[in-house]
Amino acid sequence: MNIIYYLDLIGTFIFAVSGALSAANKRFDIFGALFVGFITAVGGGTIRDLLLDMPVFWIYDLNYLIVIILAVIITFMFSMKILRLGHLLLLFDAVGIGVFTLIGIQKSVELDILPVICVLLGVTTAVMGGIFRDVFCNEIPLILQREIYATACLSGGIIYFTLEYWGVPMNLVYIITILTIIGIRLAAIWMKLSLPKINVGNR
Amino acid sequence: MNIIYYLDLIGTFIFAVSGALSAANKRFDIFGALFVGFITAVGGGTIRDLLLDMPVFWIYDLNYLIVIILAVIITFMFSMKILRLGHLLLLFDAVGIGVFTLIGIQKSVELDILPVICVLLGVTTAVMGGIFRDVFCNEIPLILQREIYATACLSGGIIYFTLEYWGVPMNLVYIITILTIIGIRLAAIWMKLSLPKINVGNR
Amino acid sequence: MNIIYYLDLIGTFIFAVSGALSAANKRFDIFGALFVGFITAVGGGTIRDLLLDMPVFWIYDLNYLIVIILAVIITFMFSMKILRLGHLLLLFDAVGIGVFTLIGIQKSVELDILPVICVLLGVTTAVMGGIFRDVFCNEIPLILQREIYATACLSGGIIYFTLEYWGVPMNLVYIITILTIIGIRLAAIWMKLSLPKINVGNR
Repeated sequence: MNIIYYLDLIGTFIFAVSGALSAANKRFDIFGALFVGFITAVGGGTIRDLLLDMPVFWIYDLNYLIVIILAVIITFMFSMKILRLGHLLLLFDAVGIGVFTLIGIQKSVELDILPVICVLLGVTTAVMGGIFRDVFCNEIPLILQREIYATACLSGGIIYFTLEYWGVPMNLVYIITILTIIGIRLAAIWMKLSLPKINVGNR
Repeated sequence: MNIIYYLDLIGTFIFAVSGALSAANKRFDIFGALFVGFITAVGGGTIRDLLLDMPVFWIYDLNYLIVIILAVIITFMFSMKILRLGHLLLLFDAVGIGVFTLIGIQKSVELDILPVICVLLGVTTAVMGGIFRDVFCNEIPLILQREIYATACLSGGIIYFTLEYWGVPMNLVYIITILTIIGIRLAAIWMKLSLPKINVGNR
Repeated sequence: MNIIYYLDLIGTFIFAVSGALSAANKRFDIFGALFVGFITAVGGGTIRDLLLDMPVFWIYDLNYLIVIILAVIITFMFSMKILRLGHLLLLFDAVGIGVFTLIGIQKSVELDILPVICVLLGVTTAVMGGIFRDVFCNEIPLILQREIYATACLSGGIIYFTLEYWGVPMNLVYIITILTIIGIRLAAIWMKLSLPKINVGNR
């Protein structure tokens, strides 16, 4: 489905904006913003491609780099206005992780990998970019701490293979997978849900 | 030797526990604990496989993921009890680095790589997981600072190629390599040995 | 040109010294200094080779490891004297990023990759080592913050493809590319130039 490609570019754009905003918050210069924007946007997919020993996607398709450069320039020019978009950013980010998870699963399935590992690689595609963003900005990775984020991706992955097993047409599987992830993620934000933590007794 | 495979899974379990405890200490949620446990347990071997351009081991063998999930769940349920096991954890960790170093060397040797580089990749297999654990938890990597840890792995690697050169039967080489690493590591802990540091004169 | 190989080893040496000094500054032990020196010196080229799915260069050429070990030992013995070399270190570092960028571009060009991506991989070769150095030392990456560093590499990359397009003989292209990078980098240091930052309005 060609629409997935365009949603992928939109997700890439939003992730690059998120990286550029983190970089701006750390007073990085424009190159630093490009670096963090790039790593946030393509970090997850790059790790997936390396783990699967497939060609790294952005090396052979210039559109990703163009979208990222655009995103960083726009963030550079309109950062104050973008920050005011708060809720809209969260919505687009939810679309991003939905699409990234689906693409990660699709690429893994092509290689006849066990479904459980496919889901793991789908989640990796969606979350590693944000984790790299925080590591390179010398922050504790946000999504490891307190939000239903990877869990939304994981749920989408489980839905994907359940529906496929039931013989649901693949186009419908794709749509429901993405909508599940977006739905769980937005519900978690709206209802301030989070996962339990391990008690180590020292605070 | 099949026993190496089981020791590898035990090492994986212990490394995952160590990652989950670090995550708990940072107040990460259960997904964060799974992420850090996973990266601690398979990070070193993954980097080795990528550097050698071999298939990444945990993608094609589900046992590693199962062991890691078990380790994180058990840590989640019994974290206080596990912390009290202190000395036993250090012993199992020593077994882990011994086995990981040996496996790293074995995999490299298959590719006709120079012995010095094989030892380097063996050490990488053993230590990168713990380094990633600390980087993703936004800590200065512990093992870069003050302990005979990588040095134990390095000594084991040198023993491996020395014994092989002398024509010692390979099964014996494997056993002595692992025991050397465990022995040096435990001796260093018991005697509080550490390596010298570079003096930069500012403290 | 064989001279590029020797310049590459010189760059490797200087990057390893820079890594070892960072490690010393963090009170890492000698293994920690070797680790950070190694990752600083070969980190960029390793990422490039992984992204391009080429054999990782230092696995099959022992000279890099030898140069790095020498650099770390020398840093260990003469750290105070080396720190006093300040300006000379900056000069050699500029040579290092010039050569690293050129080598990154040359390796990418072999694979018929788009020039824009070749330049990106050239810059990656030059800057990722320094970024890894800071991440593993738990510091905010210096070159993301305030200096014309990656920009010098980028300019060199653009010069490379411009001259090649004009039909300039390749040996001359190589020399001018390296000199451009060194020149811009040194000019930026001498004139204290830096890139603009994104304004997020909170300081």
